This record gives sequence, structure tokens and C-alpha cells, in this order.
Amino acid sequence: MGVEIERKFLVTHDSWHDLAPGVLYRQGYISTQPERTVRVRVAGDRAFITLKGATQGTARSEFEYPIPLEDANEILNVLCVSPLIEKYRHKIELNGLTWEVDEFLGENQGLVIAEVELENADQAIELPDWIGEDVSHDSRYYNSNLVTHPFNRW
Amino acid sequence: MGVEIERKFLVTHDSWHDLAPGVLYRQGYISTQPERTVRVRVAGDRAFITLKGATQGTARSEFEYPIPLEDANEILNVLCVSPLIEKYRHKIELNGLTWEVDEFLGENQGLVIAEVELENADQAIELPDWIGEDVSHDSRYYNSNLVTHPFNRW
Repeated sequence: MGVEIERKFLVTHDSWHDLAPGVLYRQGYISTQPERTVRVRVAGDRAFITLKGATQGTARSEFEYPIPLEDANEILNVLCVSPLIEKYRHKIELNGLTWEVDEFLGENQGLVIAEVELENADQAIELPDWIGEDVSHDSRYYNSNLVTHPFNRW
Repeated sequence: MGVEIERKFLVTHDSWHDLAPGVLYRQGYISTQPERTVRVRVAGDRAFITLKGATQGTARSEFEYPIPLEDANEILNVLCVSPLIEKYRHKIELNGLTWEVDEFLGENQGLVIAEVELENADQAIELPDWIGEDVSHDSRYYNSNLVTHPFNRW
């Protein structure tokens, strides 16, 4: 289906918070192997299964398909590695880019991450003032790793 | 999506062979963990992703979704554990049941397995004369295990 190129940053303060409403995301992993991740996600009232390959630089193969919400809830409860990841996602449009700011809940409460998807790896981006450290290459921040090593145990 | 109840048998001779044509199946696994298997299958010109949970008796939760053929081929090449499973599947209708007879290729050449899906675990079935040993509970015959422990190494 395609290749995802994205960068990921810590968020330093709360001035982004009123720019977009948060949608509750619940997601779990059937495989957390970095070279073949399988994620099931419920985003509001929609659900998806997503396969991702190994990260190469800032790019990663990604295949995503919508699935019935009822199936997704059953898969999250029955098949996924526990615990699940829960977070509010805020989609913020700024200067032609979409920033996805994730406020994590549960065992990852306190963690706030912003991701931006790019058209190519060299694309220049204007960083909002609430953007902090670039953690694109820090695997601790992979959602799949936040299942097994949640933020409150760092 | 549902629960799959099936029984699996070895096949003892070739008299089934002319009952139905074979369709080439190529399939690979993103997760071979028995409690959460993820399979991508190309069956002729169609493709699917299938999630299966742990086997409980003869039943197993199963969720299956069609995906584009082009995606499936890319996932088989890029994401799946190698080697892939290749086989000809013959669907044989007999006495109201559908028997799926799989003739394996490659490292599993020589292995022929027949599966039948049931409506309930206690359903009586009439066995054709080419049906041999019941291997429903023998995990060596799981397709996911034939990837890592192919028949030619038994």
C-alpha cells in the first residue's frame, strides 16, 4: 500500500491543546516485532488493522485496512498483547502539514508526542513553538514498545 | 468475526484427485504465535489477511478480511517470515460438506492434508475412503508450523 515517512517529537507545553479536539484511540498489537508489526486500532467509531515493516531511516512500509468496529473490539480483547495503548489524538493543521498530537493515558500517562507525516525524507518543516526534542529514532517511543515498557516505568 | 471449528486428516491415496481442480495458494505468516496467528494468503487471484486466536478443542477464533492482491504480494515478499507456504487447494463437495484437500509444494512436498469445517464440535461426519489419520490436534500440521518445521525435515 505504501511507505510512511514521519518524524516524531516530544511536546514541551500545552499551547497546542485548544487547536483541535481529541479523539479516543484504543489500540493493541498482535505482533510487536519491529520488522513486522500488526496493530488493531479503534479511533472514535472507526477501526483499522495496520501492518508495518522495519523502519529504514524515517521510512516504513505500511498497509492499512478498515475493519468492522465490533471485530476490532473483540480482537483487542481476545488476541492482542495486553495492556492496550489508550490515548487522545488531536489532529492539528498548521502551514499545510497535519500534526498528530497524542496524549497517552493509563500506564503511559504524562507522555505527549507529536508526529508529522512527510512527503519525502528531506522535506523542510516549520516547527511550532510547542515542539521539543526529535525522537524519531528513539525506539522507546514506538507505540508497540510502550505496551511492554510503558512510560511510568522509565 | 467468528469461531472456526474444523477437523484435519491425512490423505491416504489419490482417488480424490479428479474430484475438483486445484487452485494455487501462496501464504505467509507475520505472526506464527499459536495464540495470535496473522496470515496473508493469495488464493488464485484473490487475497486475504486472517487473524486466528488460540485453538480451544477443535474451535479457534478467526477474523478474515479481503485485501488487494498487489498489497498481498508485497506483504508476502517484504513482511512475512520466510519461507512461504505454497500448495494446491482442491475444494471437494461431498454429502453436504466441503473438504479442502491441500497438496503442499516446496519443502512440504509429499504432504497432503484434508480439512473439513463443521457447524458444531459434535457434528457427525461421513469419512470418504481416502481419509486417513485424524491429525486435528497435532500441531506439527499447523500451516504456521510448516514454515519453521517443513515436512521434508521430519
